[in-house]
Amino acid sequence: MPANQQILLDNRPQGEATVDNFKLVTTDTPALADGQVLVRHHYLSLDPYMRGRMNDSKSYAASQPLGEVMIGGTVGEVVESKHPKFQHGDMVVGMGGWQEYSVVDANQPGALRKVDTTHVPLSYYLGAVGMPGVTAWYGLVKIINPKAGETVVISAATGAVGSAFGALAKARGCRVVGIAGGPDKCQYAVDELGFDACIDYKQYKDMYFLAKALKEACPNGIDGYFENVGGMILDAVLLRMNAFGRIAVCGMIAGYDGQPLPLANPALILINRLKIEGFIVSEHMEVWPEALTELGTLVATGKLRPRETVAQCLASAPEAFMGLLKGRNFGKQLVKLI
Amino acid sequence: MPANQQILLDNRPQGEATVDNFKLVTTDTPALADGQVLVRHHYLSLDPYMRGRMNDSKSYAASQPLGEVMIGGTVGEVVESKHPKFQHGDMVVGMGGWQEYSVVDANQPGALRKVDTTHVPLSYYLGAVGMPGVTAWYGLVKIINPKAGETVVISAATGAVGSAFGALAKARGCRVVGIAGGPDKCQYAVDELGFDACIDYKQYKDMYFLAKALKEACPNGIDGYFENVGGMILDAVLLRMNAFGRIAVCGMIAGYDGQPLPLANPALILINRLKIEGFIVSEHMEVWPEALTELGTLVATGKLRPRETVAQCLASAPEAFMGLLKGRNFGKQLVKLI
Repeated sequence: MPANQQILLDNRPQGEATVDNFKLVTTDTPALADGQVLVRHHYLSLDPYMRGRMNDSKSYAASQPLGEVMIGGTVGEVVESKHPKFQHGDMVVGMGGWQEYSVVDANQPGALRKVDTTHVPLSYYLGAVGMPGVTAWYGLVKIINPKAGETVVISAATGAVGSAFGALAKARGCRVVGIAGGPDKCQYAVDELGFDACIDYKQYKDMYFLAKALKEACPNGIDGYFENVGGMILDAVLLRMNAFGRIAVCGMIAGYDGQPLPLANPALILINRLKIEGFIVSEHMEVWPEALTELGTLVATGKLRPRETVAQCLASAPEAFMGLLKGRNFGKQLVKLI
Repeated sequence: MPANQQILLDNRPQGEATVDNFKLVTTDTPALADGQVLVRHHYLSLDPYMRGRMNDSKSYAASQPLGEVMIGGTVGEVVESKHPKFQHGDMVVGMGGWQEYSVVDANQPGALRKVDTTHVPLSYYLGAVGMPGVTAWYGLVKIINPKAGETVVISAATGAVGSAFGALAKARGCRVVGIAGGPDKCQYAVDELGFDACIDYKQYKDMYFLAKALKEACPNGIDGYFENVGGMILDAVLLRMNAFGRIAVCGMIAGYDGQPLPLANPALILINRLKIEGFIVSEHMEVWPEALTELGTLVATGKLRPRETVAQCLASAPEAFMGLLKGRNFGKQLVKLI
């Protein structure tokens, strides 16, 4: 069996996460038992939710245990199988974690899914046609549920979730406005992702200036907002929400590192009769088939052309993850392992 | 035609509202045109929402215009009618405002509704079997939508909304926990209103102590919360909400007087996948018949025995309203005008 590089969570962040929270080890892959499959990972997905798992939280999903392989989505190739449904050479997506190989109990429902790479590149199953794409779909379709002509806004607009959100919202006839960090990302959002406008939040020193920019970009107000960030951006968006607006809360990356970031004016929830809903996409597996079908079609027809930032080799994963948390990536952050 | 005492909004509050924001005047009631009805008010309702109307807000419902009669719900008796559906002696509920008489265009849908005082005292149509009761019903049934056995919490528990909420939630098999100001109100909530427990928030100096008291009163966590208050109470409740909890936001009285009161930890919305929804009951007229039927039955069968605080004569309305804003009332605050 091949040697397997792995990255473990070694200790929990005190404030900001650092590369020293992780440890690289090499182990042997065990022999397969009946029903198991050995997958060689081609790509590891890096996603903001992983930062939350690093904290020792009692209440949020599962905390990542110390000394174990970091959780993470992977795509790869079956290299050995003791399960009748999988064969050498099958391309599969799963939650293989931060490592080069994984041994998967293929009888566990949803543990491993075969994918077709004829029309969709393999890596996209970790982004636009994977968990981030379904996340965008759920927040847009099930929470914001926009009518044609309404204005929807998303923060972290050029990331894996944001780019899928843009294409899904345009397909529904919405005005789509992004918020991103830096002029390059904003230009890309408009030129390549089809956003009607994109605001560089780094140009605005407080929520009031940012709200003014939102007013210009959203002359009819904001009907739906997809929250990936929290903090000042959420405060500014709340000032421009229309009556009966809907907010899907998917991430609050701004507050992951330490003290909670307060919300400046919660009375706006009442004043504008808003609906705000937090969600975790893995708790809504029932929507995945419908969402993946639409996302795959958008990619195959060229209406969703997501960008990727690809780090090389497993050892670079912690550094690439730090970059993701600071917004240094451009589009979906991946680690290429092969 | 009789002389009519009226209270006008004379100027807007700078910070706290005061009695000097109002002005008492006497006018003649005009002669009736065809389709109009003259109502002599027996009771005026005082409600927290009126404080919001006093501000010069661009976005929230309608701001109360300066120099006009303050908005308010009233019950009274038809003393003259030029409308075929109303006759002298009919008891009616409407939005007559802070005055002794009102002239109502009875052709306007919903402007005036005849009520039966056989089983329900007239004043209750301003409280338990009126707007506050329907408010409790909407938040509980349409937003919180609890299952039997779930725990629901309400702030301002002994007020007009709170007492109706308690009876409605008990009828659905919930554990119902109130939050109120002072030991007398808390004892009344448990002894008379059927709450399973009631917490005196004045005994707790910060959100963490209050959250600890909530933990004791809600050993299975909180599944639904009805928000009348905002501020520290909302922060504390958020710390005890269960995953997939629902929060109906009906009032944020704590923040009406000045600077917005921040919400300490909005990331809890995501962490616990909460749904938070603000609402104004007058925007949901479609539920009133169903809600009023249930509320009337609860009163008629003795399962809802609301308490009232009654001020005497129109001139006392501003002072009574200040008392309501500071929580000095006990149960529904009314002004008796006759």
